Amino acid sequence: MSEFDLIRRSQEVICAPGARYRAQCVLGIGDDGAVLELPPERQVVVCTDTLVEGVHFPLDTGPAAVGHKALAVNLSDLAAMGAEPAWFFLALTLPAAAPAWLEPFAQGMARLASAASIWLAGGDVAAGPLNVCITALGLVDKGRALTRSGARPGDLVAISGRPGAAAHALALLQAGRVPDARELAALEFPQPRLELGLALRGLATACIDLSDGLLADLGHILEASGAGAELELGRLPCAESLAGLPEPERWRLQLAGGDDYELCFTLPAARAGELDALQRRCGLELTVIGRITAQAGLTLRAPDGSPYRAERAGFDHFGGYRGEGSPAAS
Amino acid sequence: MSEFDLIRRSQEVICAPGARYRAQCVLGIGDDGAVLELPPERQVVVCTDTLVEGVHFPLDTGPAAVGHKALAVNLSDLAAMGAEPAWFFLALTLPAAAPAWLEPFAQGMARLASAASIWLAGGDVAAGPLNVCITALGLVDKGRALTRSGARPGDLVAISGRPGAAAHALALLQAGRVPDARELAALEFPQPRLELGLALRGLATACIDLSDGLLADLGHILEASGAGAELELGRLPCAESLAGLPEPERWRLQLAGGDDYELCFTLPAARAGELDALQRRCGLELTVIGRITAQAGLTLRAPDGSPYRAERAGFDHFGGYRGEGSPAAS
Repeated sequence: MSEFDLIRRSQEVICAPGARYRAQCVLGIGDDGAVLELPPERQVVVCTDTLVEGVHFPLDTGPAAVGHKALAVNLSDLAAMGAEPAWFFLALTLPAAAPAWLEPFAQGMARLASAASIWLAGGDVAAGPLNVCITALGLVDKGRALTRSGARPGDLVAISGRPGAAAHALALLQAGRVPDARELAALEFPQPRLELGLALRGLATACIDLSDGLLADLGHILEASGAGAELELGRLPCAESLAGLPEPERWRLQLAGGDDYELCFTLPAARAGELDALQRRCGLELTVIGRITAQAGLTLRAPDGSPYRAERAGFDHFGGYRGEGSPAAS
Repeated sequence: MSEFDLIRRSQEVICAPGARYRAQCVLGIGDDGAVLELPPERQVVVCTDTLVEGVHFPLDTGPAAVGHKALAVNLSDLAAMGAEPAWFFLALTLPAAAPAWLEPFAQGMARLASAASIWLAGGDVAAGPLNVCITALGLVDKGRALTRSGARPGDLVAISGRPGAAAHALALLQAGRVPDARELAALEFPQPRLELGLALRGLATACIDLSDGLLADLGHILEASGAGAELELGRLPCAESLAGLPEPERWRLQLAGGDDYELCFTLPAARAGELDALQRRCGLELTVIGRITAQAGLTLRAPDGSPYRAERAGFDHFGGYRGEGSPAAS
C-alpha cells in the first residue's frame, strides 16, 4: 500500500457521512491544502494535540483505541472551549503502511468523527515512529468561547464525571494486571464532553478539560484567572473501580491522574441551581467540589476539614510528575 | 525546563512581532484552543505537514534548519494554493527539553515566521522521537485559491527556480561528502514562494509545490485535471551544482529529486508573455518546460526530440521511490 493509497483509503473510512460542515469544505483532501468557507458571525477555535506511542498510550494499545483517542483528546479541547466541531486534519507518522493496523485505526477514528459530526478535511502521512497529530477546528459565536481566565472569587468549582478511572486502569496495566472492561474503556475510549461544553456557554466563567489531572488543570484556570481555590476531597465523586482503594491512593489518582477528558469548570454560586437540569440534559454527573478564592494557591481539605497536601500535581512531559505544592503557586 | 516553560519560551521566540493577523488571534497560546477571527469574504486554506528525523532530514541536521524547514514546507503549500499566511500551530514531539537544541530551533522558525508574517497561535509539546508537525492557516478571497485541477490541453507547464539542487545536496551528504554552502542551503533552508503564489492567482490554471519531485508533483496536477503533458528535458533550467553531471544523472535529480519547494504551474499559452514581468516582480526565474496534452500520461522528450523514459517518478513514503512509468498513468 503506497502513501497515496493509504491517504485515499483513510479518507474513505474516516470521512463521516453525517458531518455538518462537509459542504463548507470547498476543497478537501487531495490538493496542497483544504479550502474552508466559514459562516459569518462565527469565530474559529483551533486545537492541536499529538499522541505518541509509549507516551500517551501503552505500546500494545489496539489500533481502534489509538484512532479514537487521538481524535477524542482534540474534541475534548473543543468541548472545553464550548466550540462546535467542524473539521479536522490528521498528520499520521507510522512505521509501516500495514492495512491490518490502519483499517481498525481509521474505523476507531471514523466512529467518533461520525458521532461528533466532524469532517476530515486534510492530512499528511509519513514514515517514522508512531505519532498521531490532529488539528481540530470548531466554531463559536463571536465572543462566546469558554476560556480559562474568567474564574472569580466566590465562583463554584465543578467537574463532570468521576476522575481517576483512566489513571487507575493505566496503573493496573503498568503493574501487569488487567483492568475490567469499563476501566479500560475509560482509558482507551474517553468520551469528549461536547454537549456539556456547548451547554456551559453563558453559564461557566472558566472551563478546561481534565487531561493532565485535576490539580494541574484547575491550576491552569487559577493561573489564567489570577485566583486561588479550595477543594473538598470528601466531595470528589468516586468511580466504582476506585472505591476499594485507601484514601491517599484514591485521592492521588483523582487529583493527579489525568487522561479523564471530563470538564472542570467554574460558575457563579448564585447559579448552582442550574446544574441539576444541566446534568439531566447532558446525561452526565456534575459535582461541585470546591470554591474559587481571592487568595492565590490551591488548598485541599480532607473530609475532617484538615488541610491535605497532595503528593504530586500532574503530568509534565519533561519534568515527569511535578512535585509537591500547589500548581497555582509555581 | 518543563513542558510549560518550553511552550512559553518557544512562544516568546517564535511569535513574530510583525505578523499581520496577530490582532485577529482573539485568544492565542495558553488555553485549550486558539480563537481566530476571520475577515469576511475570505476563505481559509489549511495545510498540515510533518517532518520526521531521519526521514525528512538527516539525523545530524542543525536545529535552526529543522525549525526553518518545518515551517517552510507548510508555507510552500500555502504558496501553492495562492494563500496569504495568517496563523500556524506547532505540535512538537522531542526526546528531551534541551534548551541548547530548542533555542536555535525556535530562532530558525522565528526568522521565517517573521519574513512570512505568520503568527504562531497555538501548539502542543510531547516527549518522544523528534517529530515536527505544523498546521498552517492562510487566507484567500472567495473562490480564488489555486488548485491542482484546472490544467487544460494547450496550457503551458512552467516552474520557478532550478530543480534538483536539494536532492543533489542530499545525495552528497548520504555519500559522506560535503555539499557547498549554496547547495546545502537549498536542502536545509528552502524558501517558500509565497509572493509568486499570490501573483499567480488569476493567471495559473493549476499549481503545486515541488516537494516530491517534478514528475510526481506534475503527475498530481495531471491526475486532478484529467490531462497529460509533454516535457522537454532540454528546457529544464540547470542549477550550477548539477552542471557537471552526466545528463541521465542530472535529469534523475531534476525529475524525481523533490524537496525543492519551487512551484510548478500551468497557464494559458496566450498569456505566456506575462511571465517576464512576473519573474522580474518576484525576483525568480520562471521557465516554461512543456505543455499540457489532451491525451493522458506524461511524455518526456530528450533534447534531440526522442522520447525519454525516467528511471523513477518520485518519493513515496511506503513504496520507497516509485518505479518506472508515468505517475499520471498509475
